[in-house]
Amino acid sequence: MQKIKLAILGYGNVGRGAEYAILQQKDMELVAIFSRRNPDQITPVTEGVKIYKLEDAEKFADSIDVMLLCGGSASDLPDQGPLFAAMFNCVDSYDTHAKIPEYFAAIDENAKKSEKTTVIAAGWDPGLFSLLRVLGKAYIPKGYEYTFWGKGVSQGHSEAIKRIKGVKYAVQYSIPVENSLNEVRQGNNPELTARLKQIRECFVVAEPQADLLTIEQTIKTMPHYFSDYDTIVHFISEEEFVAKHSTMPHGGLVFRTGTTGKEDMHKQRMEFSLQLESNPEFTANIMVAYARAAYRLFKMSDFGAKTVLDIPVGLLVPDSMEELQKRIL
Amino acid sequence: MQKIKLAILGYGNVGRGAEYAILQQKDMELVAIFSRRNPDQITPVTEGVKIYKLEDAEKFADSIDVMLLCGGSASDLPDQGPLFAAMFNCVDSYDTHAKIPEYFAAIDENAKKSEKTTVIAAGWDPGLFSLLRVLGKAYIPKGYEYTFWGKGVSQGHSEAIKRIKGVKYAVQYSIPVENSLNEVRQGNNPELTARLKQIRECFVVAEPQADLLTIEQTIKTMPHYFSDYDTIVHFISEEEFVAKHSTMPHGGLVFRTGTTGKEDMHKQRMEFSLQLESNPEFTANIMVAYARAAYRLFKMSDFGAKTVLDIPVGLLVPDSMEELQKRIL
Repeated sequence: MQKIKLAILGYGNVGRGAEYAILQQKDMELVAIFSRRNPDQITPVTEGVKIYKLEDAEKFADSIDVMLLCGGSASDLPDQGPLFAAMFNCVDSYDTHAKIPEYFAAIDENAKKSEKTTVIAAGWDPGLFSLLRVLGKAYIPKGYEYTFWGKGVSQGHSEAIKRIKGVKYAVQYSIPVENSLNEVRQGNNPELTARLKQIRECFVVAEPQADLLTIEQTIKTMPHYFSDYDTIVHFISEEEFVAKHSTMPHGGLVFRTGTTGKEDMHKQRMEFSLQLESNPEFTANIMVAYARAAYRLFKMSDFGAKTVLDIPVGLLVPDSMEELQKRIL
Repeated sequence: MQKIKLAILGYGNVGRGAEYAILQQKDMELVAIFSRRNPDQITPVTEGVKIYKLEDAEKFADSIDVMLLCGGSASDLPDQGPLFAAMFNCVDSYDTHAKIPEYFAAIDENAKKSEKTTVIAAGWDPGLFSLLRVLGKAYIPKGYEYTFWGKGVSQGHSEAIKRIKGVKYAVQYSIPVENSLNEVRQGNNPELTARLKQIRECFVVAEPQADLLTIEQTIKTMPHYFSDYDTIVHFISEEEFVAKHSTMPHGGLVFRTGTTGKEDMHKQRMEFSLQLESNPEFTANIMVAYARAAYRLFKMSDFGAKTVLDIPVGLLVPDSMEELQKRIL
């Protein structure tokens, strides 16, 4: 069997996760890693894989089946996405929800011109959670949808705390409000404010002699980030921080609740939950599954930009449709 | 807007559910119901809809966009599926897992010949649960999959009890074993026997003077149906039976648990659960969503048999892909 040749562009947490993800796949192989950093500074996990400078990527257009764009949505992908979609089949986990239509359009134009296929926004939200939201709307059209994120680290909120004077390290966990989850489960269709959806729990290492009370007040009253939420602040030692708060767990829930039948007499509920010990590794796994789909669509001459909503689910796994019908349908 | 014209063939619990389902859809209308029964004996919910004999269906080939085949998998669909796939775009909820490949092949041949599109096995298992199982395998390839059914009525097991001498009415609920769910949630990858997956709880109305002890023993020792399970038997009055056990709840769970990263150090878990007050109405809702997809595929000249794994999720809802990208992705 000819393996699908993948390359990783951007070797941060997701890029490293993608490398482990490819090692779990029998029908794929990693052929190159491209990074902004000096190749000498990078030690890949995969034996024998070559590291190249980002600007050398275009030389490999003929030897890479799918490029995994593992950069960030804020600064990397707006440029990299359209650029590489013009040269390679690509997958990314672009997650700036509000800008997806324009990002899609830019990619679609370039990919169609070059007769390549790129899957955008293939992470868990957008991505997996989007699939669940659409399935919920399809199967329970008369209903309500709820998405909760957490328990997990919010990078943006952690960064906001770190910018406060006197803070050395900080991490912020978003935690769904249990009582609200139960209201949703019971089909009560609650209207949930920000405060009723998430608690924000912060673990902070302060500089010596810092004013803890001022730090705590600054966090709790920070507009947008914290003032609309119930926020809990813990000050901990650097040792505890390193020991307990260096991993990247995340997760969340997607609900669809509604009614069917005569006088809407029957309540129906779909609930999906995700619990991740590593957010970037799970994101990378999803990207790798969509790399398989992107390559198959490319082989079928189905070019252009795609989202998870455009792609038959059966294309994500190595099995043929016949095998899936026999064993898993 | 031109509405999609649907017809219902087979007016049992699912057929009636389909009628309520169509009433919830803005882009669809019900144009006919076909039944084996005398049309005079049927009172539809939808005002003005006509009832016809089953054998008249073929006369309507030009005026129906999609036919919902609401018959049973054991006796109706093996004949009706291929027959109507040769005349109409169709959707069914065929659920005999073991025979899906041959059923698919028979439908595919007829549908391709007639240039029509039929979606088979579009219920919740097979159907929705199949999607979840494949998503799980795709996103957590190194992992384990678990499907649990219940709490819900098993028709087959209820019928088996009713055949016992001295039993007037009976209903059997399959209930997932809570302790096993928790083992799965913790990522312990348990090997689960039938007994460890489901409890079987039975509510029985006995004839006057029936020997309750003999009935209970006959149930609990019945091979295949009950002897491999922990079975609970309650004898109740006819009044209680009618009051509390006349509805058709069901549900279930699909888990995927596994590991990613260096030395498989990170546990990852997807959990989906379904809780239904009406099993047939939810099945009907799913069929109606796939009727929309079948019609769209037909319009794109994508003919033949399809399963839920072949169909992009975005085709299930009335929204355009552009709207979905903007609002829900």
